[in-house]
Amino acid sequence: MRVLLETTYGDLNYRGTNERGQSIQMSGSKEAVSPMETVLLAAAGCSSIDVEMILKKMRQEVNSISVVIDGTRADEVPAVFTKIHLHYIINGNVKEGKARKAVEMSMEQYCSVSMMLAKSVEITHSFEVISPGLNDNI
Amino acid sequence: MRVLLETTYGDLNYRGTNERGQSIQMSGSKEAVSPMETVLLAAAGCSSIDVEMILKKMRQEVNSISVVIDGTRADEVPAVFTKIHLHYIINGNVKEGKARKAVEMSMEQYCSVSMMLAKSVEITHSFEVISPGLNDNI
Repeated sequence: MRVLLETTYGDLNYRGTNERGQSIQMSGSKEAVSPMETVLLAAAGCSSIDVEMILKKMRQEVNSISVVIDGTRADEVPAVFTKIHLHYIINGNVKEGKARKAVEMSMEQYCSVSMMLAKSVEITHSFEVISPGLNDNI
Repeated sequence: MRVLLETTYGDLNYRGTNERGQSIQMSGSKEAVSPMETVLLAAAGCSSIDVEMILKKMRQEVNSISVVIDGTRADEVPAVFTKIHLHYIINGNVKEGKARKAVEMSMEQYCSVSMMLAKSVEITHSFEVISPGLNDNI
């Protein structure tokens, strides 16, 4: 797998591009997402893709998945993450037991990004299922 | 540090947003950069920002920095990276010794992203300096 990073404009601004020509912007001067924010998003993205695929294989009806990711950084340099918490919000007709199983399978077996980070960072997770049927009687 | 990931449209497509409202797109269905590509770009982004800042502190004239990043993945699941190589291309009036020092300082002391990955992945690097003066006589 090959990707390319390049200076765009001004100070500390970069564009990263993959072999299909798709790109993301990153910045060290607050003009775009920072590399450390990007790592948190990559971990959540990798895992959400797993969870979505696993739940669909389980014939659950997933409308959307959101993840709130909190990263705690070391005080000294390098300011690596010491803890990462992922909170999954799964919207759809999804059984809670299936959601738990899907999230656990991702975090323990499939998600390459969090597996790599877990060698040096404590990664925890929680989840909730929001069923569209819940509001039907309101 | 908090970031949010959300389903956008279709299957396996996500948008990640930071607290300033800046975002990146990721996809598990080839419609945007993948999470594993994103991790490689975050490592290079983090390090390029270091290198740019260090070289500017060394009063070197940096025009642009590009990084070609190659990631080798495990054959089995989880298909984590086993090796990552970063090749820095530094354009500007930059002394080679200063460039070497800047890249080494980033990889060995400052770059939080590669420090975290280095616990589980073999990370190597190389660099070249392209001086604008080189073509003056052609």
